[in-house]
Amino acid sequence: MAEIKKLVYKFGDGKAEGDAAMRNILGGKGANLCEMNRLSLPVPPGFVIAAEVCVHFYQNEWTYPFNLREQVQGSLKHIEIIANRIFGDSQNPLLVSVRSGARTSMPGMMDTILNLGLNDDTVKGLAKITGDERFAWDSYRRFIHMYSDVVLGLTETETDPFAEILDNIKKANQRKVDFELTSEELKQVVQKYKELVKQKTGKSFPDSPVEQLWGAIGAVFRSWMNDRAIEYRRMYSIPEDWGTAVNIMAMVYGNMADNSGTGVAFTRNPATGENTLYGEYLMNAQGEDVVAGVRTPLPVARLAQEMPEAYQELNRIAKILELHFKDMQDVEFTIEKGKLWMLQTRNGKRTGLAAMRIAIDQVSEGLIDEADAIRRLDPDSLNQLLQPIFDPEKLKTAIANGLRLAGGLPAGPGAAAGKLALSTKSVEEFVKHGHSAVLVRMETSPDDIRGMKSSEGILTARGGMTSHAALIARQMGKVCVVGCEEIEVDLDSKSVKIGELEIKEGEDISIDGFTGSVFRGFIETVPSVVIRKYLHNENVGENQLLQIYEKIMSWADRFRDLRVYANADQSEQCEQAIALGAEGVGLCRTEHMFFGEDRISVVRSMILAPTKELRRKLLVKLAEMQRSDFTAILKVMNGKATTIRCIDPPLHEFLPHEAREIEEVVKELGLTLETVQHQIDEYKEFNPMLGMRGCRLGIIFPEIIEMQVTAMMQAACEVRKSGKKVNLHIMIPLVSHVFELNAQKKLVVETAERVIKNAHCDEIQYTVGTMIEIPRACITADAIAKTAEFFSFGTNDLTQTTYGLSRDDSGKFLPYYLDHGIFPANPFASIDQHGVGQLMEMAVQRGRTTRPGLEIGICGEQGGDPNSIYFCHKLKLDYVSCSPFRVPVARLAAAKAALDK
Amino acid sequence: MAEIKKLVYKFGDGKAEGDAAMRNILGGKGANLCEMNRLSLPVPPGFVIAAEVCVHFYQNEWTYPFNLREQVQGSLKHIEIIANRIFGDSQNPLLVSVRSGARTSMPGMMDTILNLGLNDDTVKGLAKITGDERFAWDSYRRFIHMYSDVVLGLTETETDPFAEILDNIKKANQRKVDFELTSEELKQVVQKYKELVKQKTGKSFPDSPVEQLWGAIGAVFRSWMNDRAIEYRRMYSIPEDWGTAVNIMAMVYGNMADNSGTGVAFTRNPATGENTLYGEYLMNAQGEDVVAGVRTPLPVARLAQEMPEAYQELNRIAKILELHFKDMQDVEFTIEKGKLWMLQTRNGKRTGLAAMRIAIDQVSEGLIDEADAIRRLDPDSLNQLLQPIFDPEKLKTAIANGLRLAGGLPAGPGAAAGKLALSTKSVEEFVKHGHSAVLVRMETSPDDIRGMKSSEGILTARGGMTSHAALIARQMGKVCVVGCEEIEVDLDSKSVKIGELEIKEGEDISIDGFTGSVFRGFIETVPSVVIRKYLHNENVGENQLLQIYEKIMSWADRFRDLRVYANADQSEQCEQAIALGAEGVGLCRTEHMFFGEDRISVVRSMILAPTKELRRKLLVKLAEMQRSDFTAILKVMNGKATTIRCIDPPLHEFLPHEAREIEEVVKELGLTLETVQHQIDEYKEFNPMLGMRGCRLGIIFPEIIEMQVTAMMQAACEVRKSGKKVNLHIMIPLVSHVFELNAQKKLVVETAERVIKNAHCDEIQYTVGTMIEIPRACITADAIAKTAEFFSFGTNDLTQTTYGLSRDDSGKFLPYYLDHGIFPANPFASIDQHGVGQLMEMAVQRGRTTRPGLEIGICGEQGGDPNSIYFCHKLKLDYVSCSPFRVPVARLAAAKAALDK
Repeated sequence: MAEIKKLVYKFGDGKAEGDAAMRNILGGKGANLCEMNRLSLPVPPGFVIAAEVCVHFYQNEWTYPFNLREQVQGSLKHIEIIANRIFGDSQNPLLVSVRSGARTSMPGMMDTILNLGLNDDTVKGLAKITGDERFAWDSYRRFIHMYSDVVLGLTETETDPFAEILDNIKKANQRKVDFELTSEELKQVVQKYKELVKQKTGKSFPDSPVEQLWGAIGAVFRSWMNDRAIEYRRMYSIPEDWGTAVNIMAMVYGNMADNSGTGVAFTRNPATGENTLYGEYLMNAQGEDVVAGVRTPLPVARLAQEMPEAYQELNRIAKILELHFKDMQDVEFTIEKGKLWMLQTRNGKRTGLAAMRIAIDQVSEGLIDEADAIRRLDPDSLNQLLQPIFDPEKLKTAIANGLRLAGGLPAGPGAAAGKLALSTKSVEEFVKHGHSAVLVRMETSPDDIRGMKSSEGILTARGGMTSHAALIARQMGKVCVVGCEEIEVDLDSKSVKIGELEIKEGEDISIDGFTGSVFRGFIETVPSVVIRKYLHNENVGENQLLQIYEKIMSWADRFRDLRVYANADQSEQCEQAIALGAEGVGLCRTEHMFFGEDRISVVRSMILAPTKELRRKLLVKLAEMQRSDFTAILKVMNGKATTIRCIDPPLHEFLPHEAREIEEVVKELGLTLETVQHQIDEYKEFNPMLGMRGCRLGIIFPEIIEMQVTAMMQAACEVRKSGKKVNLHIMIPLVSHVFELNAQKKLVVETAERVIKNAHCDEIQYTVGTMIEIPRACITADAIAKTAEFFSFGTNDLTQTTYGLSRDDSGKFLPYYLDHGIFPANPFASIDQHGVGQLMEMAVQRGRTTRPGLEIGICGEQGGDPNSIYFCHKLKLDYVSCSPFRVPVARLAAAKAALDK
Repeated sequence: MAEIKKLVYKFGDGKAEGDAAMRNILGGKGANLCEMNRLSLPVPPGFVIAAEVCVHFYQNEWTYPFNLREQVQGSLKHIEIIANRIFGDSQNPLLVSVRSGARTSMPGMMDTILNLGLNDDTVKGLAKITGDERFAWDSYRRFIHMYSDVVLGLTETETDPFAEILDNIKKANQRKVDFELTSEELKQVVQKYKELVKQKTGKSFPDSPVEQLWGAIGAVFRSWMNDRAIEYRRMYSIPEDWGTAVNIMAMVYGNMADNSGTGVAFTRNPATGENTLYGEYLMNAQGEDVVAGVRTPLPVARLAQEMPEAYQELNRIAKILELHFKDMQDVEFTIEKGKLWMLQTRNGKRTGLAAMRIAIDQVSEGLIDEADAIRRLDPDSLNQLLQPIFDPEKLKTAIANGLRLAGGLPAGPGAAAGKLALSTKSVEEFVKHGHSAVLVRMETSPDDIRGMKSSEGILTARGGMTSHAALIARQMGKVCVVGCEEIEVDLDSKSVKIGELEIKEGEDISIDGFTGSVFRGFIETVPSVVIRKYLHNENVGENQLLQIYEKIMSWADRFRDLRVYANADQSEQCEQAIALGAEGVGLCRTEHMFFGEDRISVVRSMILAPTKELRRKLLVKLAEMQRSDFTAILKVMNGKATTIRCIDPPLHEFLPHEAREIEEVVKELGLTLETVQHQIDEYKEFNPMLGMRGCRLGIIFPEIIEMQVTAMMQAACEVRKSGKKVNLHIMIPLVSHVFELNAQKKLVVETAERVIKNAHCDEIQYTVGTMIEIPRACITADAIAKTAEFFSFGTNDLTQTTYGLSRDDSGKFLPYYLDHGIFPANPFASIDQHGVGQLMEMAVQRGRTTRPGLEIGICGEQGGDPNSIYFCHKLKLDYVSCSPFRVPVARLAAAKAALDK
């Protein structure tokens, strides 16, 4: 006989069948409920249905494992015993909550049902045992509303007939807020609710608590596959086959009386990281009221006055939880008639800034060590220290001009300005036309996620620091201001009203995520303090943000193995990159220099020159220009690795298109318009990405490479003679066959040696290597490494060729692909490890088999993406190269990668 | 002490240090010279310097292994003993020949020197021992000429000052041919030659025979790297590091007297395969005279009258050689005063036709078995049975109109017509402009190879069936007529003259490689007898060519494992393919049907339709058309595998470009010209190859796939109901991620099932699979095989993406790449096994790990290329698919692949 599989895990009274380590089985919420029991914290008794039941549910046409029902019934009994109440009993009824809880938190994405177990009988029992009839009926109407919404699906985003009924009865009885309604009025509400259900479904509202329970369990499982949840999983790469657990727990009542309430709290400030209990609560309310942001709650500090005992207890528990979990916690609690109950704890989401400050504080407190601190940080959070703030002068002017409209809670640091957008659609419309947008909503809901992502910042009229908007914005690293109650969002007139003032959708507004201020108009931004110190050499004095930056960076540099280089084409960019910690230049695109105003016309004439002689003459002119560029760069680099790539793009990119420009070339070259136009047309290609570019150009026009290498080496000699060091790496692009590289390397070395000899300079350190950006180069990396002295992955082109996908043309289908999960992620943003990554792995392995210790880096755009950096570390690359402003993020990501070993 | 390496191998007097198996060490010529000694055939004594000395020579700055000189000297002694003459002796001088000989024959590519050892002393000894002063001085002047050319490099292609001297002395003495020159006159020639050498080099002609020998050895090694040899190796993929051996052999003299001569012979007819000794000889001449095609030699049958004993001996030896080597031999012989000497034997090159006939004959003779016969055939030789011949009516008319100009020797079967071209350059010029060309030369030289390759056929005025032109043409499978002495090539007037008639370069001529006839004008061609029988169902009666075809095909089909399918888009093509032996259709491109005149305007309107409704309406119209196409195809296929690919090319390819066409759409859709033009522009892409095409189209416009699958399945139901069988494979193109295939397969299956259900037809056999044509599809083939029921390699696109190389744009550099060996071969012609091939291997292995026995084929253009077919066999593919006319070649190639295991 097969062993009966354990599908349900009980907890209560300081004991639990699970613990915090079992989050894969019990979900995060369930596992931590068990753990809190083990810590003897006050948690209502309950049980968890394991997530694998959800997987079974979807694999077996929405059915349950055969022995689930029995295990659930046994566990209910367990609650009844501890709670000393009976499920469905008309005298002493047990009510339960039913909540989802996946392995990782997906706030607000799935469904919850409270007060389950009520019917016309048990409501009376509830009234009797609590001695509070109004409370009992309030719970009952809440339950029917929630159940009708979640299980029966009778409400829609736009219209909620249950809310209408409630509003009507409130109006009829002149009640302003819900808790003013009397028992009798609440009975009316329940009556009307039940009539509505009967009318809409043709069936009575289910009376049986057991039927209610299974309805709720099924609804939670079904909510795993609702659109919001799917979208959320897609955005955060959460696998579908994890499934969700279901948490069933005895109800405790925050809505029982005036000495009851419910709240959420963070053990430290999630916006700034300050080490004080931070949170919000509502008296006489149930948990969903806080999270939904419908009523603006009170700061948790107020509790110290209102219910000092409960406040002290909460503080005591917060300390225990932090010590135990060694991280800042985000807890839900309910106070029932003065007694504190814990309903949830989890690691709290926080702004990048808070994350850094908390990590640093916890290291000084001895709670964690520096490696833990680094492990815990999202590299992208550093952006918050690098992000621009409002230009102080412009800000002053704006304030002086009375453009400050209102203030809210600063829920996501930074400064954002853009067109006021009232919907995801509007945000996307503005962005599509090249504008920035600020999403303004009464309150955000999970449906707004896409708009939040595309906007510069988010502003809501309602909700606190723990509302949906705040939570998601922090996670996304968006500028966010919430609970700005002065503003009123009017969707009919498509505007926002502040008193008399009306701002239409499409007008500019600006929001300050550090202070919570909201401004009319577009306020320009200035660099952050880090940028000012490191890039602008300003004296910024003692500064907390700067200290955080410096501490984190010093730890990161201590732990990481990967070197961090920058992609920089000009000496100024090289300076910036070094200031932000770059140890070299991984990609200097020589052709970017061609586009200078003084150069492009020479470049054009060179390409279109009718004779080799004329071309050579113009190349000499260009060499002169490139030499001075290279000299400036190599001076700045002074011995740091400097990787210069030979010409890469198709020549057509340089050619003139406008009549005026063509005329210029005609004059310069003394040719007819027709000839020049014909020549220009000759350079056109069907698929320029796959055409005459990279080393193909260099092979057909060796004189261009000769010119470039001459310029590089002359610059190197000059710099060397000035007493500085040179560490030059010459990179050949787009190699698909080692013979291409052989031919180009021969040309490069011959040219370089000639220049060095002519300059009487014999100490130039240089190597010749290649971009690995074509699948065939990865496959034949063993052969290529015979010639190449280094590899540098060009993951942009490698992704394009591996997918057979032109990024320039993907706009017509890539958004659809990402929206519909046809590509799980955008391979141009983060390395596609399954496809492109395997080619890279092959290249590393084969390349180093031929040439042990071969220097390998990455210089594609993904070089600054943390996930890609973790992958590069795993592949044992030597360095990543990214844009100068991503260097700090890359340093931190590299350290995380090293610590994740 | 290190063992002394053996670098030189002696042979002579029925003994040899090497044998035929040692061709890698001794080269083909040297190995077979040894083997003939072992067969006790009459071969002059000699020795072979191993090919590795050539490798050493190039790796060590043109120097020799230290012990070579000693071994060569010892071997010279060996010759002296057997020949009973002494090298450099003024009384009894030994002369030798020095010839190249690589592992594989490279006719005429490298250098040879005869009569080496002569100087002013030894020439007298030679005169004395042969009793023929004239002969001695004739040999001397030949030697100086050859040595000055080959070793000293004093002649050029255009001008040969030695030939001028000879001509002048002939004229001065009124001699018409060389052998009329007297000893005294020859002495003058020698005198002048030596003066010329002194004048040109500043040094006397080398007197020392030993110095001469080392000069000649060095020249042979150096000739391994001459331009012709490099080009030849590139064309035939011969590795450079094989090197060439050097054969040094005692001279025998075909120019000694009137009962001397020299010739070449084939043991069977190399043009037709007929089993009779075939060849040519020249009396009183040395070997180079025959091969160079300077004098037109006599057919070897004539020898039966002139020297019956030598003829019988040659016949006897031919039989021995064929029995021994089990293949037709190509021999060189010299008759010295009536005695026959063998100078070389090798497997003879032959036309495809001859190859097939010889193979069949040798099987009936019991010399080889059928597997040997197949192993020995070049699959492409079948083309000669499929190639068109002149339209008999048109030919009759041409003859009647007196357009037959002349006749030569039929050296390569087939019929060719095109513009008369007098140089490689002209051929290439004509071909570039879309014309066919016939290369006409006095005689061809190795420099003409490129022109021969590009031309339809080759005509020479001089040379026999064994001349350079004939040899190379046969190898290339070109139509060829040689030795057409009536024509005179006049390079000054750029014309060919036949008596009074002058035909200018660029005028049309036609040549018949079956009969040797040359015609003025362009005679149209008609299909071969095989095509007439199998494709046109003509009754062609008993026919030898047909019998050859049928026998070879029946053997091939018996041996091969690979199935052979065809790429066919229309029912007629399917019929042709089946007639030529195709077992299925591996690729039916549905969109080719869109280009029909009645359809393209519907397709355009469909794409540009302003509403989904209108698009659907037009799709219904298209479905109707596609249904009838598919019905016709499936009827023809009647249960044979039929693989239909869903729409693939970018929609822009279908859109109108001319004003008139655009106007049509404007009218049809009732839109403004502006709107339509804007829409057309919207479809333009930067890199359409990597853009919105293949399954990307199918995902964004599912209605097109729905239409196509509906049409396919309706057709299938109709055919099924008519009592025929259906075996349908629906193929999704351009998949890079399995999720793309999942989405498309779902749509295909849903649509198909709906159609089948509606048609009340439940026995349709169909599968859904995918093209593997993107590197990522190969890498993730394990995932893709979860969904795909078959794979079909699209090697065109796979090559493009693996190389990052657009075939459409490669014209600017690919020719240069191929000419300069930067790509060793054109990857679009034959699968690049090192790069693309490795991805294919990965795809096969991963695909079949997920789905054992997964059906895998290839439908790219390389599917008809024999080398690619061998590779596909090695990869264990199930089938190859190629154009219908390549099917016989593919069947033979598949059989060869199976036998090469």
